[in-house]
Amino acid sequence: WEGEFFPGISKIKYEGPSSKNPLSFKWYNAEEEILGKKMKDWFRFSVAFWHTFRGTGADPFGAPTKSWPWEDGTNSLEMAKRRMRAHFEFSEKLGVDKWCFHDKDIAPDGKTLTETNANLDAVVALAKELQERTKITPLWGTAQLFLHPRYMHGAATSSEVGVYAYAAAQVKKAMEVTHYLGGENYVFWGGREGYQTLLNTDMGRELDHLASFLQAAVNYKKKIGFNGTLLIEPKPQEPTKHQYDWDAATAFAFLQKYGLSGEFKLNIECNHATLSGHSCHHELETARINGLLGNIDANTGDPQIGWDTDQFLTDIGEATLVMLSVVRNGGLAPGGFNFDAKLRRESTDVEDLFIAHISGMDTLARGLRNVAKLIEDGSLAELVRKRYQSFDTELGALIESGKADFETLEKKAIEWGEPSVASGKQELSEMIFQSVL
Amino acid sequence: WEGEFFPGISKIKYEGPSSKNPLSFKWYNAEEEILGKKMKDWFRFSVAFWHTFRGTGADPFGAPTKSWPWEDGTNSLEMAKRRMRAHFEFSEKLGVDKWCFHDKDIAPDGKTLTETNANLDAVVALAKELQERTKITPLWGTAQLFLHPRYMHGAATSSEVGVYAYAAAQVKKAMEVTHYLGGENYVFWGGREGYQTLLNTDMGRELDHLASFLQAAVNYKKKIGFNGTLLIEPKPQEPTKHQYDWDAATAFAFLQKYGLSGEFKLNIECNHATLSGHSCHHELETARINGLLGNIDANTGDPQIGWDTDQFLTDIGEATLVMLSVVRNGGLAPGGFNFDAKLRRESTDVEDLFIAHISGMDTLARGLRNVAKLIEDGSLAELVRKRYQSFDTELGALIESGKADFETLEKKAIEWGEPSVASGKQELSEMIFQSVL
Amino acid sequence: WEGEFFPGISKIKYEGPSSKNPLSFKWYNAEEEILGKKMKDWFRFSVAFWHTFRGTGADPFGAPTKSWPWEDGTNSLEMAKRRMRAHFEFSEKLGVDKWCFHDKDIAPDGKTLTETNANLDAVVALAKELQERTKITPLWGTAQLFLHPRYMHGAATSSEVGVYAYAAAQVKKAMEVTHYLGGENYVFWGGREGYQTLLNTDMGRELDHLASFLQAAVNYKKKIGFNGTLLIEPKPQEPTKHQYDWDAATAFAFLQKYGLSGEFKLNIECNHATLSGHSCHHELETARINGLLGNIDANTGDPQIGWDTDQFLTDIGEATLVMLSVVRNGGLAPGGFNFDAKLRRESTDVEDLFIAHISGMDTLARGLRNVAKLIEDGSLAELVRKRYQSFDTELGALIESGKADFETLEKKAIEWGEPSVASGKQELSEMIFQSVL
Amino acid sequence: WEGEFFPGISKIKYEGPSSKNPLSFKWYNAEEEILGKKMKDWFRFSVAFWHTFRGTGADPFGAPTKSWPWEDGTNSLEMAKRRMRAHFEFSEKLGVDKWCFHDKDIAPDGKTLTETNANLDAVVALAKELQERTKITPLWGTAQLFLHPRYMHGAATSSEVGVYAYAAAQVKKAMEVTHYLGGENYVFWGGREGYQTLLNTDMGRELDHLASFLQAAVNYKKKIGFNGTLLIEPKPQEPTKHQYDWDAATAFAFLQKYGLSGEFKLNIECNHATLSGHSCHHELETARINGLLGNIDANTGDPQIGWDTDQFLTDIGEATLVMLSVVRNGGLAPGGFNFDAKLRRESTDVEDLFIAHISGMDTLARGLRNVAKLIEDGSLAELVRKRYQSFDTELGALIESGKADFETLEKKAIEWGEPSVASGKQELSEMIFQSVL
Repeated sequence: WEGEFFPGISKIKYEGPSSKNPLSFKWYNAEEEILGKKMKDWFRFSVAFWHTFRGTGADPFGAPTKSWPWEDGTNSLEMAKRRMRAHFEFSEKLGVDKWCFHDKDIAPDGKTLTETNANLDAVVALAKELQERTKITPLWGTAQLFLHPRYMHGAATSSEVGVYAYAAAQVKKAMEVTHYLGGENYVFWGGREGYQTLLNTDMGRELDHLASFLQAAVNYKKKIGFNGTLLIEPKPQEPTKHQYDWDAATAFAFLQKYGLSGEFKLNIECNHATLSGHSCHHELETARINGLLGNIDANTGDPQIGWDTDQFLTDIGEATLVMLSVVRNGGLAPGGFNFDAKLRRESTDVEDLFIAHISGMDTLARGLRNVAKLIEDGSLAELVRKRYQSFDTELGALIESGKADFETLEKKAIEWGEPSVASGKQELSEMIFQSVL
Repeated sequence: WEGEFFPGISKIKYEGPSSKNPLSFKWYNAEEEILGKKMKDWFRFSVAFWHTFRGTGADPFGAPTKSWPWEDGTNSLEMAKRRMRAHFEFSEKLGVDKWCFHDKDIAPDGKTLTETNANLDAVVALAKELQERTKITPLWGTAQLFLHPRYMHGAATSSEVGVYAYAAAQVKKAMEVTHYLGGENYVFWGGREGYQTLLNTDMGRELDHLASFLQAAVNYKKKIGFNGTLLIEPKPQEPTKHQYDWDAATAFAFLQKYGLSGEFKLNIECNHATLSGHSCHHELETARINGLLGNIDANTGDPQIGWDTDQFLTDIGEATLVMLSVVRNGGLAPGGFNFDAKLRRESTDVEDLFIAHISGMDTLARGLRNVAKLIEDGSLAELVRKRYQSFDTELGALIESGKADFETLEKKAIEWGEPSVASGKQELSEMIFQSVL
Repeated sequence: WEGEFFPGISKIKYEGPSSKNPLSFKWYNAEEEILGKKMKDWFRFSVAFWHTFRGTGADPFGAPTKSWPWEDGTNSLEMAKRRMRAHFEFSEKLGVDKWCFHDKDIAPDGKTLTETNANLDAVVALAKELQERTKITPLWGTAQLFLHPRYMHGAATSSEVGVYAYAAAQVKKAMEVTHYLGGENYVFWGGREGYQTLLNTDMGRELDHLASFLQAAVNYKKKIGFNGTLLIEPKPQEPTKHQYDWDAATAFAFLQKYGLSGEFKLNIECNHATLSGHSCHHELETARINGLLGNIDANTGDPQIGWDTDQFLTDIGEATLVMLSVVRNGGLAPGGFNFDAKLRRESTDVEDLFIAHISGMDTLARGLRNVAKLIEDGSLAELVRKRYQSFDTELGALIESGKADFETLEKKAIEWGEPSVASGKQELSEMIFQSVL
Repeated sequence: WEGEFFPGISKIKYEGPSSKNPLSFKWYNAEEEILGKKMKDWFRFSVAFWHTFRGTGADPFGAPTKSWPWEDGTNSLEMAKRRMRAHFEFSEKLGVDKWCFHDKDIAPDGKTLTETNANLDAVVALAKELQERTKITPLWGTAQLFLHPRYMHGAATSSEVGVYAYAAAQVKKAMEVTHYLGGENYVFWGGREGYQTLLNTDMGRELDHLASFLQAAVNYKKKIGFNGTLLIEPKPQEPTKHQYDWDAATAFAFLQKYGLSGEFKLNIECNHATLSGHSCHHELETARINGLLGNIDANTGDPQIGWDTDQFLTDIGEATLVMLSVVRNGGLAPGGFNFDAKLRRESTDVEDLFIAHISGMDTLARGLRNVAKLIEDGSLAELVRKRYQSFDTELGALIESGKADFETLEKKAIEWGEPSVASGKQELSEMIFQSVL
């Protein structure tokens, strides 16, 4: 494959909200400063190699639909390299300087683990070269521990010790490669760490295994001098009936139980959040207030659909709430926003790859601009401050220091009589919120 | 009110599975020994005062439908006492020797907290008397912190400090009363501890308040010498959009974060479990493997309904799974099974109260009998044991002791080549399970 | 009660998008023309008497929270009249000239049906008077057939013939009253027309009864010369497990089966739509393409909540989709937008009543403005036109006339070989849609 | 491939409930008479070729896991024939004498439609031969119109006329083949007849196309003298966001609108029922009371999972409710029970194919036996009869004949005063139901 992969498409430019050009940014202006930081530094956008370059359009009832011109129908090493070049051209034209990958996305399996690792090294060498030229580096890397049949019962939670060992070897290599490429984080998504039925499962034992595995990963990270953040990505179900990292709170419980809290943060995915019965904003805030918000997998689901649709986020209100959490968190670095989102199966034009990413980037950029307006306006923050002001008192301080005992409180209750309770002003807060959209 | 409250109904007897008499037990035989324990000791059944004696049949679209003959339409102290007598007669006839209550179920509010507490004392004195005669004692008590408008923004998580204090005073009294009546547990169901919208909510601050509140409860418990277990009852939502005790894992994360783990266990309610997207069995097992299974609120929901229906459990498979967790837990004592279940709104005959409880007791009894068969048969346990036997090895032991590092594991993985993975035998496990139903 | 009910609040004015005044319209400008019609004529907004003047804030776990100054705590005829005056003042100040009511909202029950009807007449006489002065008239009326215990098994589908007769008498009167007040529609929401369990239900017989009932209503409407549209309001469940008017398609199937299609249209409620697993836009379009879109109950639910929350709609994207259906339908007249939406339980200030309605009106107005932009832009419509252009051909015409047989089609298929299939351009259509928000 | 495909497994025999042999029937005894009919005639079981012989274990996150010994890794004509022989051996050993298939399951595609049809004919010739030897015949056939990328926008509802024509040609051939093999029904499952987003969709036009297509199918059926029943299989969503045949009521509305009611019945699938928010029993009853119950796709979903899991039904209560509808319907012939159910991805032993089917057959057989007990007992039917007895009166008859007008009913209501309403006895009905399980 000689020449450009995306010949008709040049670097995507910011043209402002009035532009009708689908191949331009209307809201995302990388170098523009908002709330004291360049937009690109708030977002640290990343292209997900798997969806964008390995997504086929297949679904449980349908065969692949994509036939990108650069694909030759094989999974050869040659094809892997060509695809990698296409990826860097895509990211450069899009103006995104980070990428995310699974080991299996970027290089074909060999006949043995050793051969597989050699294949990976060959592609990684090319990636390194392309990285140097483009200044695009990994936001994070990860090992794919769910597609291969060997992982059908899980990886770290497989009932087979040989699979556990194999998974460890795979993570070891993926971590080395991520480190070598200058990755800033390493992600654990427990694709099959869960169960299909409790009837055949020893859940306690499987969770113990998972903890041992993650502890070994922590140890290995330190050993090789990798300073990236380790991230757990919660998801409630799919492919298994029940994934062990159900949601942020479940992951937090697990990390605390096994003494792993200081070593991991969370990668929150909006579509996973809603599948677990929470709003995305709830999951982000849960992670944030527990010091665990490390990265965001930027996508969305369909409120009427019970599986992971991994759509590009285009809802402005949702994007504004997401950015509210990010701004409160002071940003996400060394994490960022990874587009764990895929084209619809029926979107088969090469330009659709660009349109989808532009749409996702613009939506989040619009969210950030809205948050800036919300903060400037100030009335929502003031409404919240006032709601809790009765705790900004002596008794409030006593309570918040953990020193208010029941006898003291009872005395106050009797002394005060029936407490007054103010309106929650939900409709007003919604009106204010909408006013900045 | 003189004489019997349930004149046509005598003590419910065990008549065995072939009986057609709705007012008899077909499966629950209190004194019969199953798996080394009397049935009554496995279950420790309790009647929930609120549903059975205060349930009106009202729903969001409907007025009360129940008009029990002993009710006079008032909420007077006199009526409270009469109702208490009806309750003890009911429980005796049903053959249940535990009960559960909120403070507000059993006594009317006064004009002040002091007057309210006096009312409570008056009814509690009668209850004590009735308890002594009947040997029926509280499985647990609790304070109702959700019905009154003062609690509309929460109790321990209210935005108003006066409400926090009032709630503390109420829990203090309820705990004293529970202790006085010989209650074996005390429950916290965070009825309005949650939020309706994050827009007006400081979630982090509210959770800090909740932790302070629970710590104060622990301190007070110790101070008064109450040795009952403190129980948190998870529920995902309703009445709020998001309850802070979403599910067992969320509660566990919270308890660990605030250093409260050793002080609380969980009261798992099946209907709450399914509303949170889990099977009841999952929640029970999650509690159990974390040493938190303290009590069960025995009810069920409707798989197609998104709110708390609090139905009596009649599904045999479900009951068998529930009892599987209980047997693995070695029972629930000092906890038990509380019937947090209510008559359907349209069930308006006095005998329906008996039929519903009998049905619930028989269903769980049938579940226990099935578990005994499952254990005797042994083939399901053997299937599970075999699934994990590759971990009953030297490498398995190394992993489970936390000492298997990635280098060692990688060496094994290379040495062994592609691991073999056995069938999960889910269909076989389902077949075996069904064979005992 | 002398003087104003809402003393601090004057008539709500349009102040444009930059206004920060919560008590002003930012987007709704009644007399402004959009797409060839005044905004007020597109919307035909209506206040729902039940939520706004009878909503108490009670929920399944909570007592009433509202204590409006004009309420005296009784359900007397006097109170009913005072409340009616408050309602007309509210609507006038809000600038809404339609209202909706159930018979039971506006007048207290008497001891007999005759007395109840007399009470209703007394309040209706006052309403008539207030209507004349204010030019506010009913968008629709209806009978409340779900709150009273007599309706616990349904009204037209009750298992008791006496209840069926009683319901008929109630609808007869409510229809007369609606007619008398100049109502333009009459609504049937089958609050308890459904079942709680199929075990005790003869669904076929109940549906036959429902059809007889609705046929009798059609006959009576004609008899009294009432020309208003009869509307069925689908809802999937709540209060029953399964409501017979599950969704638009279910209602359409029922109407056709019983020969009632020409006589009824549908009142689509957004929150009911999402509870039935559809987007609101889907339900509106389903009604529209079948000629059944008659009215909209303007509210929204919470995507994570499984019961009817009846919130005021504040989502801009949703509002734009709603208005897209309305514009395609050429408006809704003689139907309109009824605010079947309630204050959150925690919103207890009188001004919250205004804020909530203003927010709902502004959101829909913003939706209409967005639709105008979408139509002006034209690119989305063009995208859709192009997608189907292969049917704007001879063969397409043959198919659409129902004359293309399988042999002809097979010949074409063989002749043409593998058909080409274009990208669905979903991401582009989402980008265009968002650009007008 | 010479010799047996399932060498260690002989014909599955009925051994009764006490048998511990997984490869035996405990409840299904083909020739035993229950409720006046042989069990095999109640069920008319069918093996689904696609799941059992083409299911690979792949899922959205996982590669195939099954490696049946007879598969050679190709999709050749030779392999198709070998697989067909395996299928007939399997069905014979299982004791199932019907089968179901898509055209694409049984024969590979050729380069052109003509070649594809020739391939199909070649395999069908073998199937015909095997059918004659084994007396196993198709319960139904169908065309697979969802897997191939050409169908990504639908088949009869595709936006491309060429796809519509291709689909017609495919159905034409599939119908001929089904007729030739003696199939008793022909099924339409609208795999991609729906939409992914309304933004790019003309729903009205697509539904018109679907109706034209089905009308052409009716015409062609008559032309070739095929007397089998045409069946529509409702499903709410997946793969599309919204399938046009959402549920039984939606399909019924569609059939009536387009004048197709007399020509089609429904194929109800339990897992589709629950995905649409209904119980399976509800969908069966909806079909039954509208004269549309034609066939059952016997499977089940997971109550906590939002996608089609197609599990074998093992729930006894559910099976009893299913059989209650079937018995009320007088059976399903010429329809039957097709096992549209698949092994779990992790079940990889050949014997698992047998175990799963045996479990499914036994569960339904147990359901039938329970229905027989329920009918013999009679008390549930009596409870229902009594509930409605007030309609077995003169006024009831007037209502049911459609002649009771509102004036007559009002007179009665006034005359009778407040109607009495009996308890719904839901708990009693659940107790009775459980007693036969």
